[in-house]
Amino acid sequence: MKIVITGGAGFLGQKLARRLLQLGQIAAADDGVRRSIGEIVLIDRVAGPDLGDKRIRNVAADITDAGVMKGLIGPDVDLIFHLAAIVSGAAEADFDLGMGINLDASRQLLDLARAAGRRPRVVFTSSVAVYGGVVPPVVTDDTQLNPRSSYGVQKAIGELLLTDYTRKGFIDGRILRLPTISVRPGAPNKAASSFASGIIREPLNGQPTVCPVATDLKLWLLSPRGAIDSIIAGAELPSSALGDKRALNLPGLSVSVAEMIAALERVAGKAATDRIAYQRDPAIEAIVGSWPGAWDISRAEGLGLKADPDFDAIVRAYVEDDLPKARA
Amino acid sequence: MKIVITGGAGFLGQKLARRLLQLGQIAAADDGVRRSIGEIVLIDRVAGPDLGDKRIRNVAADITDAGVMKGLIGPDVDLIFHLAAIVSGAAEADFDLGMGINLDASRQLLDLARAAGRRPRVVFTSSVAVYGGVVPPVVTDDTQLNPRSSYGVQKAIGELLLTDYTRKGFIDGRILRLPTISVRPGAPNKAASSFASGIIREPLNGQPTVCPVATDLKLWLLSPRGAIDSIIAGAELPSSALGDKRALNLPGLSVSVAEMIAALERVAGKAATDRIAYQRDPAIEAIVGSWPGAWDISRAEGLGLKADPDFDAIVRAYVEDDLPKARA
Repeated sequence: MKIVITGGAGFLGQKLARRLLQLGQIAAADDGVRRSIGEIVLIDRVAGPDLGDKRIRNVAADITDAGVMKGLIGPDVDLIFHLAAIVSGAAEADFDLGMGINLDASRQLLDLARAAGRRPRVVFTSSVAVYGGVVPPVVTDDTQLNPRSSYGVQKAIGELLLTDYTRKGFIDGRILRLPTISVRPGAPNKAASSFASGIIREPLNGQPTVCPVATDLKLWLLSPRGAIDSIIAGAELPSSALGDKRALNLPGLSVSVAEMIAALERVAGKAATDRIAYQRDPAIEAIVGSWPGAWDISRAEGLGLKADPDFDAIVRAYVEDDLPKARA
Repeated sequence: MKIVITGGAGFLGQKLARRLLQLGQIAAADDGVRRSIGEIVLIDRVAGPDLGDKRIRNVAADITDAGVMKGLIGPDVDLIFHLAAIVSGAAEADFDLGMGINLDASRQLLDLARAAGRRPRVVFTSSVAVYGGVVPPVVTDDTQLNPRSSYGVQKAIGELLLTDYTRKGFIDGRILRLPTISVRPGAPNKAASSFASGIIREPLNGQPTVCPVATDLKLWLLSPRGAIDSIIAGAELPSSALGDKRALNLPGLSVSVAEMIAALERVAGKAATDRIAYQRDPAIEAIVGSWPGAWDISRAEGLGLKADPDFDAIVRAYVEDDLPKARA
């Protein structure tokens, strides 16, 4: 079986590749049978690190490049994880870049998957940025797409296309809307949600950090480990389980910032939480405060997808999976 | 002032052009001032008829043709009516044709309008086909986009793009979702809703017709004359009236098929209604029966847009506007 991962050098793409190598097999056809993974193609602007496994093929290329992509997505591809994206802040700052990667490259990928003629499975990661405006008290998989950012618009369009390409029988698509990922490894980024990882990661890494929101703010969180579990579970779902509703809001944990910090203190002590300074940033509070407050994820749970057990487990997962590298 | 109408040779484009020529002026800028119309460019695959007015310029071209479109949409364009579309049945039968016209040509038009740099007004006609699945008892402007046809997906994507291009300040877009148009002049087409015009038009034209649905079925209707009124009113709305919600469900009349036929008999007598045969078609009933049953169009009404007064007026409008040509 051949798998393609776009955004393969990103932190999620790398974690997904490592997990797939560990698993060795995955179910990606209607018969539900797990089959051996022969090749995983990781495509990204820069080549990912050598994972020391001959099943991995790193390709450094622009996913808008039709020639390169056509060479990668042929009739031999069984499963595509389309993770590559220009993130929200960057897509807002550079409209054409966002349209090129988030819309045009996604469309091209779907057309190549269609042209391959074997109805491959395509897993598309989407975002709560497809919501906006007046959001209902509880968000469900039926809440209206009402994005208020170019990133959200581009993701919503990707969702509509994936759903229609699936309805037409061109692909077997599934859309997974990720909660805010925490604790995301690596450096802070310019996402408004960056602090949701930073207030845990930086203290564990021995660095100072700033919490820019009131500590009673509730966030909707999923660990990287939980995200990989959900992405693989989403890939393995039988197509009939999704029917004509291809998008799933993934289960997350609703956790206040105060609860996050208390969990950090339980795992790493007061020396860690003392590294957090508190300085509210109205711009960040406005964005984060507009996100949906409550979620009904019973549909995803009914399909066997799970949130992390609690935020302590999320902190411990970071310590186990990513802290050694951060300190190395 | 220069106006561009795509789909300009179609029945709606032609009626819109004639009305604009009559009016002589239209308000298309934020100051709300009606200005004299100097040129109306009608673009369509085939050139429209000579309307005998030197303000009209007929262009026969494919709207996917970037070179032609770039020559038409420059900094001198104040107002664009984007009516061109591949209709639902055809977009379902030929996926690439629908994507090319309904999505790619719309995107190109928006990019040319943006490149022109003067934030022109763009009026985009959309459709109730953006709804689908389990529709709430009363549809409002906030009902979720959930299309179940390629045509509906392409229109929904057009709506998302128009909204984002407006938010970014590239254009001043407004989206008008049209009810079923009745009485549409001309020949029957392959739309499931074709009978909604045919059961009135054919008897008035002296032709037999078949009613394929139960007569208690309710339809959501707007006359061509009412559609033109709403399209012009939509074009003249100040941008601030729409805010960040650029899409409006246009007011229509909820009329049962029995009420339509009774109105026909009042206007044209029993000789007309005797030309209707009744033969139910389950395929048509399934499609038409899935359309939303009730509408809350208070937002559009609050902005001054109006439905037809009653279905008798709709029948009389066809007799006045289109019957002479049909008989000629």
